[in-house]
Amino acid sequence: MTTIGEMSEDALIALFAPRLPSTDVEVLGPGDDAAIISIDGDLVVSSDVLIEGRHFKLGWSTAADVGWRAAIQNIADIDAMGAVATALQVTLAAPSETPVDWVLGFADGLREACEPLGVGVVGGDLSSATEIAISVTALGETHGTAPVTRADAVAGQVIAVSGMLGAGKAGYEQLAAGVRVDEATVALFLRPNPRIGAGLEAALYGAVALMDLSDGLVRDAGRIAKASEVGMALDSASLPVHPGVAVAAQALGGDATQWALTGGEDHHMLAVFPTESAVPEGWSVVGVTTDDHEGVRVDGAEPTDQGWDHFLR
Amino acid sequence: MTTIGEMSEDALIALFAPRLPSTDVEVLGPGDDAAIISIDGDLVVSSDVLIEGRHFKLGWSTAADVGWRAAIQNIADIDAMGAVATALQVTLAAPSETPVDWVLGFADGLREACEPLGVGVVGGDLSSATEIAISVTALGETHGTAPVTRADAVAGQVIAVSGMLGAGKAGYEQLAAGVRVDEATVALFLRPNPRIGAGLEAALYGAVALMDLSDGLVRDAGRIAKASEVGMALDSASLPVHPGVAVAAQALGGDATQWALTGGEDHHMLAVFPTESAVPEGWSVVGVTTDDHEGVRVDGAEPTDQGWDHFLR
Repeated sequence: MTTIGEMSEDALIALFAPRLPSTDVEVLGPGDDAAIISIDGDLVVSSDVLIEGRHFKLGWSTAADVGWRAAIQNIADIDAMGAVATALQVTLAAPSETPVDWVLGFADGLREACEPLGVGVVGGDLSSATEIAISVTALGETHGTAPVTRADAVAGQVIAVSGMLGAGKAGYEQLAAGVRVDEATVALFLRPNPRIGAGLEAALYGAVALMDLSDGLVRDAGRIAKASEVGMALDSASLPVHPGVAVAAQALGGDATQWALTGGEDHHMLAVFPTESAVPEGWSVVGVTTDDHEGVRVDGAEPTDQGWDHFLR
Repeated sequence: MTTIGEMSEDALIALFAPRLPSTDVEVLGPGDDAAIISIDGDLVVSSDVLIEGRHFKLGWSTAADVGWRAAIQNIADIDAMGAVATALQVTLAAPSETPVDWVLGFADGLREACEPLGVGVVGGDLSSATEIAISVTALGETHGTAPVTRADAVAGQVIAVSGMLGAGKAGYEQLAAGVRVDEATVALFLRPNPRIGAGLEAALYGAVALMDLSDGLVRDAGRIAKASEVGMALDSASLPVHPGVAVAAQALGGDATQWALTGGEDHHMLAVFPTESAVPEGWSVVGVTTDDHEGVRVDGAEPTDQGWDHFLR
């Protein structure tokens, strides 16, 4: 088994780069000081870090799973502006004893996530490190719609989500407990699979606030509440909970509703629409905006569990 | 001393973001799912990683030094296409015991490097990690000139560099030996200070190949040789060696010329011009391109020391 410490950086890049997805917007791809891509209108850009042991575990995720997650969660951030992702920059730092096959598998996962969406990996950097640290910057453009921020919701509007909640949390809890009762949610934890394009759809339907669910509904709704200076009143009975969540929660003594409220990493869209009739088909209304209170309330009460924070643990 | 582990991510971002430089091209800055910047023409994009203990040492560099380096080496990559950097995305992963002051000092260094150049930090991500891992993606645009790659040199042209070589290496060797005989090169190792704009200048003067010197003249010249399929014949007597290099090399028993040939991280521009008369004032001619041989020769011989590789050590 060859490790990356046995290869030069140039040799590793020569193996790695051909596995990466390309894109129509690429003017100049990897290999020079910088890549060049064509941009139609304004550039939409977002970055996320994934650290071994914190954002993924090598014992749980294959290299391709990690590549998939790194790509999708960043592409979801571009979708969450109502924009369209076209290219990624990817940096990978890894211990010199990392197998070359791991690095190539990581590239495969990037490609599997990106290729169906027409997104290319246009550049990046490889380095040695003590632990695996990945950083992805997603680049996109607006397609005829104004970007949708988190800041323009007002009271009396409708809160909706674009997919079923809690799957990531249910998958995580099963892996953490070593108990597997629902493979679908385990698979969705390892490879989050939000419908990319739901954000653009929300923008086209007139959404006034939009973000993707990375840190859980309660915490993320709180961010719209803060940015828009509006109350977010969530109705737990109306949450679209992934069916596997109840199975896993029952087996593990958890609370399915609580997991759907606070579980992170589903990456579905959370949007505020002006009226209920503006909500696109397939989305679920989960509450309303209000000026009765600040921040987030669930069934009228302040939530005790906020969900995920990357530093406080 | 407050550490980042004692703060929420949102609270840390609230302290960090106001210290970052802004830019005229910013349409929407940090705080939403993605940032938005206006781009004039094609987008030029480059990313680099900096890992604690590999690309910088906490005992040598202040947090602001690290921020400076992270910004400048990426801005130099954009300059090395003959393009103009306008914005950075910055991700920082750090141990929870990292002082908040270190993170804020890092932001100060980013600002000190970027502000005079009109470059803004428009977004990024913060995370916990075992070691400090920084990834910067620089974004820029071409200003009326075609991008200059590494691939268009032919035999019979002139190789030139835009600044004095070896300073980074001389500074590194002094810090490594604990012997400080030349403060200027130590300062340049800690805060590389290439003339940003030299790359655009080269493009305007008709350079046919261009890159920045990050891994040393010999290794980087080899990259142009490979991309352009041309020989690079360097003349060691003509190298513009930083005056502090001789001082440091003498004190440490090193070879100043060798340091100038192989020392990395100066980030000056390396360019191939069609003729000697095309070389801008202030640049130094260091060799010629040739079809007499492949790769790089120094004074007619194959170099024994290639310089820096991030994996092979």
